[in-house]
Amino acid sequence: MSGQLIPTQSLENDTAASAAAGGETPVFGLHRGGKMEVRATVPLRDRADLSLAYTPGVAEVCTAIAERPELAMDYTWKANTVAVVTDGTAVLGLGDIGPLAALPVMEGKAVLFKQFGGVDAVPICLDCTDVEELVETVVRLAPGFGGINLEDISAPRCFEVERRLQERLDIPVFHDDQHGTAIVLLAALRNAAKVVNRPLADLRAVISGAGAAGVAIAKILLDAGIGDLTVVDSRGIVSADRADLTPVKTELAAITNRARLTGGLAEAMRGANVFIGVSSGNVPEEYVATMAPEAIIAAMANPQPEIHPDVAHKYAAVVATGRSDFPNQINNVLAFPGVFAGALSVRASRITEGMKLAAAEALAAVVADELAPDKVIPSPFDERVAPAVTAAVADAARRDGVARL
Amino acid sequence: MSGQLIPTQSLENDTAASAAAGGETPVFGLHRGGKMEVRATVPLRDRADLSLAYTPGVAEVCTAIAERPELAMDYTWKANTVAVVTDGTAVLGLGDIGPLAALPVMEGKAVLFKQFGGVDAVPICLDCTDVEELVETVVRLAPGFGGINLEDISAPRCFEVERRLQERLDIPVFHDDQHGTAIVLLAALRNAAKVVNRPLADLRAVISGAGAAGVAIAKILLDAGIGDLTVVDSRGIVSADRADLTPVKTELAAITNRARLTGGLAEAMRGANVFIGVSSGNVPEEYVATMAPEAIIAAMANPQPEIHPDVAHKYAAVVATGRSDFPNQINNVLAFPGVFAGALSVRASRITEGMKLAAAEALAAVVADELAPDKVIPSPFDERVAPAVTAAVADAARRDGVARL
Repeated sequence: MSGQLIPTQSLENDTAASAAAGGETPVFGLHRGGKMEVRATVPLRDRADLSLAYTPGVAEVCTAIAERPELAMDYTWKANTVAVVTDGTAVLGLGDIGPLAALPVMEGKAVLFKQFGGVDAVPICLDCTDVEELVETVVRLAPGFGGINLEDISAPRCFEVERRLQERLDIPVFHDDQHGTAIVLLAALRNAAKVVNRPLADLRAVISGAGAAGVAIAKILLDAGIGDLTVVDSRGIVSADRADLTPVKTELAAITNRARLTGGLAEAMRGANVFIGVSSGNVPEEYVATMAPEAIIAAMANPQPEIHPDVAHKYAAVVATGRSDFPNQINNVLAFPGVFAGALSVRASRITEGMKLAAAEALAAVVADELAPDKVIPSPFDERVAPAVTAAVADAARRDGVARL
Repeated sequence: MSGQLIPTQSLENDTAASAAAGGETPVFGLHRGGKMEVRATVPLRDRADLSLAYTPGVAEVCTAIAERPELAMDYTWKANTVAVVTDGTAVLGLGDIGPLAALPVMEGKAVLFKQFGGVDAVPICLDCTDVEELVETVVRLAPGFGGINLEDISAPRCFEVERRLQERLDIPVFHDDQHGTAIVLLAALRNAAKVVNRPLADLRAVISGAGAAGVAIAKILLDAGIGDLTVVDSRGIVSADRADLTPVKTELAAITNRARLTGGLAEAMRGANVFIGVSSGNVPEEYVATMAPEAIIAAMANPQPEIHPDVAHKYAAVVATGRSDFPNQINNVLAFPGVFAGALSVRASRITEGMKLAAAEALAAVVADELAPDKVIPSPFDERVAPAVTAAVADAARRDGVARL
């Protein structure tokens, strides 16, 4: 079992471990005791309160929901509550560290859900990695939640887990590593295209990395009308002539690379207008030098961008990264709180492509007349972001016929 | 799937349904939007906060936990967090209403956990009823929780689910319908025995009902040294000569009924000192009249006690019920918050019989010199209860060698 505890004698080394971990650094100090709590939103002062919130009063509410299940959305916390589900196999840049060690990230995510979207989120760290087991487990625990945010589940399992859960459940299921990243990237790219005064349809983009984020970015860029798109994985350009493709990459090969490029990243980047990095590899400067003039570079690897901004700026008109200490940070927190808040607000049965595209447009629009090469995406602390995304996603859910309110 | 939502047109009847449900009565009004929320316990005002609570800072905490899993107890919310798990098969007096309709009870339970024990609790309503599936599901979702409170799972499955989870997990697993009820009943009985000035060893008790609560009460009374004990189910006295017993009842038959009584409730109650009702049947007054003098009656069925207090008082020295509008309410909230708070406070690996007995003793002791026939158990709002139970359970965990702190 992951997350097994060890006996008392080991815990006596706690102080030593803390010291080894940096003597309760600010990070560990902040994390002591965790980052979140559960709170009552109803009074419990006396027997009268108790008889309303618990027995005997609560039985009336249970009976009503048993008769009309949709009333759970009115009379429980379900309508505003999301499970943040992980198996701990692809956590940040750390990889497969297991469900217990992933918990601090899931708590962080839950805290961001509340802070930025007003959504109650609960970390669910699952001690299984088999697709079938993950799907069954999430289906079983779903009744108490209004949405499922999948997090840090490694590719290619993440694609099948998400697809099958979407088939089985009638609440939004959203793998944030895929679609959150894709939405924010698209928003940044829309604004970057404005900066260089080119329509998306004129641009050829290269995506380096065909994991969760790379695949989702490819799909949303195609949906958004990008001119052409070449995806490159660790073995080269994803194209139909390769025999080593997973089903997802086979699908990608069929809908990307209209230019029929072959080779590797060097060949893909030559003459490209946009570079999108969602891998961990370093890109040689000579590749960058071959890009088209007024290039757009989003090098999102953390902590080391695939192309350092100092290098990128030599060749590119707009540069974005995943880091908070450079301008134009591609940060998922710009998307997922509003996406879920919007979907939950209209009780959407799922999150459609239209809702994702609307989220990206709304996010891009927040920048408005502040648009500049160093400001193609808002700050995570821009208070206009979540309301704008929430409203756009809710509207799109209604347009797409998946709203139930 | 239980908890399936219905399409938009049905929701348009919402107002009508509300009206039908009592035009948003105080109960429904209080439940609107649910009874609980998730909150951050750390600040998230700016990029510096974000870089501590989330990336990049959080990666240090994840790495530390991956190397030393027990650090999750220090640096996440796990150590103080309990999953309140149900399959919705035995909810209050309502029976098998499914996981979604059980959610208001689980939220209520979570709210009580926080209010009375300071414990963060999360409702987990599972859409499966097979023992194997329940066990596997809870094992898979356990990493993020410090304890598992099983709730409203029907007998006899509840016994095997609990036993198997206790074998598989190294955190407390506690079926409250069994042990919470048993602890509070034992506390009340200890004080009632004092009122009639008889040691427990002198008393013969009858338990009417051999479901979750009945079985657990039988076991704790035997552990506490009751003189003799007869369990009666819907087919009569549970005794070894019956061919229709479940494994759990076979076990009960072997350790109860030293008097070798045969027959039904009438035979069991004749001359008994204590009646404990955890069924839903009504007990005829003529049975009650045959009990020994200075009888003790705990008729816990809700909302209709097996023996109405007005009848019980004609024959008994002490009368308790499950209702808040009569004296001596046997209410689980007197036990479970302190039991978990105590167990979690010392990171107990499980909840031992010693911890349950200690909880009952501590709860009984709170009454102290207020002891009277109408005051054998404290009020749920007596603020001394949870701290007393918490401390006693933590001490017992240390004595029993299951504490890890």
